[in-house]
Amino acid sequence: MGFFSKDIKTLDDLFVHTLRDIYYAEKQIEKALPKMVDKATNPALKAGFEKHLDETKGHIARVEEVFELHGVKAKAVNCPAIDGILKEADELAGDIADKKVLDAGLIAAAQAVEHYEITRYGTLIAWAKELGRSDCAAVLAKNLKEEEAADKKLTQMAESSVNLQAAE
Amino acid sequence: MGFFSKDIKTLDDLFVHTLRDIYYAEKQIEKALPKMVDKATNPALKAGFEKHLDETKGHIARVEEVFELHGVKAKAVNCPAIDGILKEADELAGDIADKKVLDAGLIAAAQAVEHYEITRYGTLIAWAKELGRSDCAAVLAKNLKEEEAADKKLTQMAESSVNLQAAE
Repeated sequence: MGFFSKDIKTLDDLFVHTLRDIYYAEKQIEKALPKMVDKATNPALKAGFEKHLDETKGHIARVEEVFELHGVKAKAVNCPAIDGILKEADELAGDIADKKVLDAGLIAAAQAVEHYEITRYGTLIAWAKELGRSDCAAVLAKNLKEEEAADKKLTQMAESSVNLQAAE
Repeated sequence: MGFFSKDIKTLDDLFVHTLRDIYYAEKQIEKALPKMVDKATNPALKAGFEKHLDETKGHIARVEEVFELHGVKAKAVNCPAIDGILKEADELAGDIADKKVLDAGLIAAAQAVEHYEITRYGTLIAWAKELGRSDCAAVLAKNLKEEEAADKKLTQMAESSVNLQAAE
């Protein structure tokens, strides 16, 4: 959020603001993922979080590329949404006694993160196109595609093994 | 979250906890939507938020039905995720000077809310099935379907008119 009220006057301002929001979010996710790797017990889930940490570093680089393409400084703004989602994930993990139930909880938490990113990238792509920035839209679409794939993979892991093990 | 640490021991506990989380979230959304109706300028968007307020009341009733089917007390637990998403929406709206740009921002904010609900209902349905509660899963699936439809409708409104007007 800006320090001064009403500082978003155009769709371009809103696009840049939201780019800064997802930039902050991706950086917070980069910090949170190693903790999720540590907490996960299922080897496929652990490996999945590790892979997504690598992807997240790539997403940050792509967001920086969009800032550059659009001619604005790469800057993060506070994003209470991702802070809340990660806080909830952290508190939930602390509340779960059983390792296999924790894995199911970690997947749910990670999918909440993915869905936040999916909605933000979807919005950013639509706005970029409206602003005639198909170059920015194309870069952002690569991040969206990977977030959607990560979300699907988490669903598969949950339904094929993790939920079953948690219910035992 | 529970007041005592490690109070989630089984997938059933996790299911009930997450049901309480979405119950809280739906109630917060019920409170937030009238403010979004007031802030929206585009008549179709205003009407869409009004319709979703009605749907949200129905979602709350369905979550209460699931509590009853599952034999647990309907109770809300704090959900920092939805608090963060709604806080961000509120701060963003306060930062936008132009009414048409605000409409585009309101759609983005509403889609972040929808995506949070979509991920939580998706998870709850999977867990309900794993727990042999296809009755609960069927009720929750009705909410999921309406959230997905609301999200799609917001995308259509954004792409067909609101983003275009915001970019003028």
